[in-house]
Amino acid sequence: MSDQDKTVKISAETWSKLQTLYQTELKDIDLVVEEAVQAYLKNLETGSLSNGQPQNALRRPEATFKPQTHLRQIPVVPGEAAVLFIDVQNYNCHKDGAEMQGLPPDTPVDYWWKRMEETAPKWVQLRDTCREAGIEVMYTVIQSLTADGRDQSLDYKISGFHVPPGSFDAEVLNCIAPGPDEIVLPKTSSNVFASTNIDYILRSLGVKFLILAGCLTDQCVESAVRDACDKHYYVTLVTDACATFSQERHDNSLRTINGFCRQRTVQQLADEIAQAKK
Amino acid sequence: MSDQDKTVKISAETWSKLQTLYQTELKDIDLVVEEAVQAYLKNLETGSLSNGQPQNALRRPEATFKPQTHLRQIPVVPGEAAVLFIDVQNYNCHKDGAEMQGLPPDTPVDYWWKRMEETAPKWVQLRDTCREAGIEVMYTVIQSLTADGRDQSLDYKISGFHVPPGSFDAEVLNCIAPGPDEIVLPKTSSNVFASTNIDYILRSLGVKFLILAGCLTDQCVESAVRDACDKHYYVTLVTDACATFSQERHDNSLRTINGFCRQRTVQQLADEIAQAKK
Amino acid sequence: MSDQDKTVKISAETWSKLQTLYQTELKDIDLVVEEAVQAYLKNLETGSLSNGQPQNALRRPEATFKPQTHLRQIPVVPGEAAVLFIDVQNYNCHKDGAEMQGLPPDTPVDYWWKRMEETAPKWVQLRDTCREAGIEVMYTVIQSLTADGRDQSLDYKISGFHVPPGSFDAEVLNCIAPGPDEIVLPKTSSNVFASTNIDYILRSLGVKFLILAGCLTDQCVESAVRDACDKHYYVTLVTDACATFSQERHDNSLRTINGFCRQRTVQQLADEIAQAKK
Amino acid sequence: MSDQDKTVKISAETWSKLQTLYQTELKDIDLVVEEAVQAYLKNLETGSLSNGQPQNALRRPEATFKPQTHLRQIPVVPGEAAVLFIDVQNYNCHKDGAEMQGLPPDTPVDYWWKRMEETAPKWVQLRDTCREAGIEVMYTVIQSLTADGRDQSLDYKISGFHVPPGSFDAEVLNCIAPGPDEIVLPKTSSNVFASTNIDYILRSLGVKFLILAGCLTDQCVESAVRDACDKHYYVTLVTDACATFSQERHDNSLRTINGFCRQRTVQQLADEIAQAKK
Repeated sequence: MSDQDKTVKISAETWSKLQTLYQTELKDIDLVVEEAVQAYLKNLETGSLSNGQPQNALRRPEATFKPQTHLRQIPVVPGEAAVLFIDVQNYNCHKDGAEMQGLPPDTPVDYWWKRMEETAPKWVQLRDTCREAGIEVMYTVIQSLTADGRDQSLDYKISGFHVPPGSFDAEVLNCIAPGPDEIVLPKTSSNVFASTNIDYILRSLGVKFLILAGCLTDQCVESAVRDACDKHYYVTLVTDACATFSQERHDNSLRTINGFCRQRTVQQLADEIAQAKK
Repeated sequence: MSDQDKTVKISAETWSKLQTLYQTELKDIDLVVEEAVQAYLKNLETGSLSNGQPQNALRRPEATFKPQTHLRQIPVVPGEAAVLFIDVQNYNCHKDGAEMQGLPPDTPVDYWWKRMEETAPKWVQLRDTCREAGIEVMYTVIQSLTADGRDQSLDYKISGFHVPPGSFDAEVLNCIAPGPDEIVLPKTSSNVFASTNIDYILRSLGVKFLILAGCLTDQCVESAVRDACDKHYYVTLVTDACATFSQERHDNSLRTINGFCRQRTVQQLADEIAQAKK
Repeated sequence: MSDQDKTVKISAETWSKLQTLYQTELKDIDLVVEEAVQAYLKNLETGSLSNGQPQNALRRPEATFKPQTHLRQIPVVPGEAAVLFIDVQNYNCHKDGAEMQGLPPDTPVDYWWKRMEETAPKWVQLRDTCREAGIEVMYTVIQSLTADGRDQSLDYKISGFHVPPGSFDAEVLNCIAPGPDEIVLPKTSSNVFASTNIDYILRSLGVKFLILAGCLTDQCVESAVRDACDKHYYVTLVTDACATFSQERHDNSLRTINGFCRQRTVQQLADEIAQAKK
Repeated sequence: MSDQDKTVKISAETWSKLQTLYQTELKDIDLVVEEAVQAYLKNLETGSLSNGQPQNALRRPEATFKPQTHLRQIPVVPGEAAVLFIDVQNYNCHKDGAEMQGLPPDTPVDYWWKRMEETAPKWVQLRDTCREAGIEVMYTVIQSLTADGRDQSLDYKISGFHVPPGSFDAEVLNCIAPGPDEIVLPKTSSNVFASTNIDYILRSLGVKFLILAGCLTDQCVESAVRDACDKHYYVTLVTDACATFSQERHDNSLRTINGFCRQRTVQQLADEIAQAKK
């Protein structure tokens, strides 16, 4: 401190706090104030410290909320797209599947099997449309890597989903059986991004647009929609190529994740892709 | 092939396929059959090839579905637990928050502010209960690392969530302002696991039980529940310490993710923790 | 099986194995052979099962090894590039840094301080070159999120690297102090990709080219080079903007990771970037 | 401000900066100083803001460097351990492997084949020791999921490592062919953690101790050591069960990563495990 120091005023309350805080360590409050102001200036100069929370209210940056939802609606570019069929497999979609034998008695199985009948042709149409357009066709199935399932996630161990490799239940439903050189990813989590390397593979493939279908709409499919959206993909959910245990659950799910994806029927998507070719 | 070869029969149809397939390459069908049977035996011996799908139906492994849902109900062990407050910040929970200024006109804001009033004391109780029990108290807030938001995810750029560091909107709601040395993670994705290193931090901290609260119940909170469950955590969702834009949406979300977490009120959780101490 | 069945031969040894295997379950070896051949044909048709290992040697796909190393040499595109300064901070680069006080007595500190003197201007030149070209300038520092370091990785706890937030040691070296709105990522792992969300941020920023510099060449820098390469980035290592505890270690590291990155001096990179502008 | 305000002094230089900064916005420097001191006090109270960098030098937290390297030496607990064989496959370890046909003419192949001969029995011993002790035995191989390799990482495309599924080259070396129900993970990155879900699987299996072996010592093996260490595993590198293209490269690698793992010969590890059983 020197002769040229300037005099300023601070509130009695703040002065008192400083006094209390530093009395045993430091008598000279001026030094503390000097340091405080210098720190404050440094924060102002840098605007903001990354990850940090500068405290200068006079020039605080302002938050905004300006959705540009039209950007989520951009059409699929086939050469940068993949379709993923989620859990369309015997375990839960075939009458002989093990999960279907163990469901609680109040499960609305009649609705389910009717829905399966309606959805199967949608899966076929979606698969054919994508193959024809040169879109990568991928599948994920509930399946462990070991016969005893020891590699299953904690959740799948609790949920009791045990589908060993090589089992009938692990197979993709016959109507859309994987073609030559199409990728099938076994998973032991609801969200395919959690337990598989799909994000890595999609990046390797140059995929930016992810088309999702399968079941259950509000379980594994919804989890995939949410994470794909968070992981920088443009997500198209094919609404009539998804199924869950009631129409109400299906509709609720579509509403809930409306902000994370765009939603199209198979036919709408097929039309869009056909249009893109012209 | 030698004198000791054994004679077997295969169907005409299969024989014909082999014939067609190999006629230009190989005349001797016996060699192909020999190889096929050896491959088949090898598959049988190894039981299953990891990641592979052996095709031997005679001894195929069997899938099962045996939920053990009681395992999801095990009580929180405080020394291995963390509570995470999700998006309890000025941006969307304070009347001056920027998001609240930009909502569509049909947003049920009356419900929302009433809910905020009811929920705030629950957050405080939850925070205090956890702190007292030695449970790690953590926060995540919608916030970019840069003032211009260029580090935001594609989704947040589309959604228009712009909360710069140092802004009023980035601050945790004052009623549960972070205490000394509590961790706050800025995020630019709905699911906190997608855009932050929280999974790494939780592992470093030795956390196995994750308690979740905040808003919106059916958006960022639900995404966190789903991913935490998939990532091997025992998840407790604190139902009355969550909020979204209608009671119906809140209830639907709880039902939908019932299989991914256990659900408790703040008081139930507090009682459980008090019980654990005895 | 029918009248039209065809007769084929299999080796006695294989026949015997089948006999042994199935005697208690199945008398009719023909059925097993039929199934084996059908499985074999199915494998042939699909070419390969994803993740699986079909066993048909006759038409096995062929591996190749055809490096295209010129592709790793493509020049940085400034608008899609970031430079990351690794651990250029007081803890280990400043004479008052805590790590430098605790090094084993046989550490070649004379070499180190000389190297620091030479490297500091390189860091400045690199930083200035990148800023001017519009390349994103980023920093990572050894730093925990908590004052007691409980969030440190197991490795950092063992290694004893304790750098609390707000400490002198956590600061980037003054000569390249972060500018306004530049990102600084605290880390508690050698490899910045392991303990931070840098991969997420780089994707958000649209970065494809990653320029790496800092210290130690053969520790944290090398780990970052390896992982960045594996994570689909084009990596440029700036050789004279890296340092470690001996010239030999430095040179060995550059040789070892030559296949994971291209290597340039600051001047070479500056020339390349200047050239790109023309 | 009130009558009870206290007078303090700040340096002329700081005062001048404030003046410059605020002249057009704010005449009253006292208000700025008050805010600065309050912000400073708030930082002091919270000790440190997570992720932030408070600037109060008077009470800055202190960094330390206190290695506890004995903690890295704790012996493997078999029930919580896995061994991973890295790239011990025909592609690069068998005389007919495709990579071995394409190596540059100056590759020291004589050294390599001699080394392979010495190392093969070590792999067998390591595999047998681990199996016997109930340690999970795992393998990773260079292999794409598609016949045309389109799912390969950018790095593998550049490096030209093309190993389709079902190829001879994708097979683990016969001497340690995977047993029934052992996990094999195909990868298209140097670091197995980058392109596979191994971290997820290890967590599902409850693995804390990771034993690493294979080749090349200073390439894929070293990358795995580094990342496993960063990902909270206790890593044991089995030195004589690793190989690279020269003894010098091998030795350099072991020295470089000495801080990331403990290093044992197969025999030392076998003795330790035998000891643990007693």
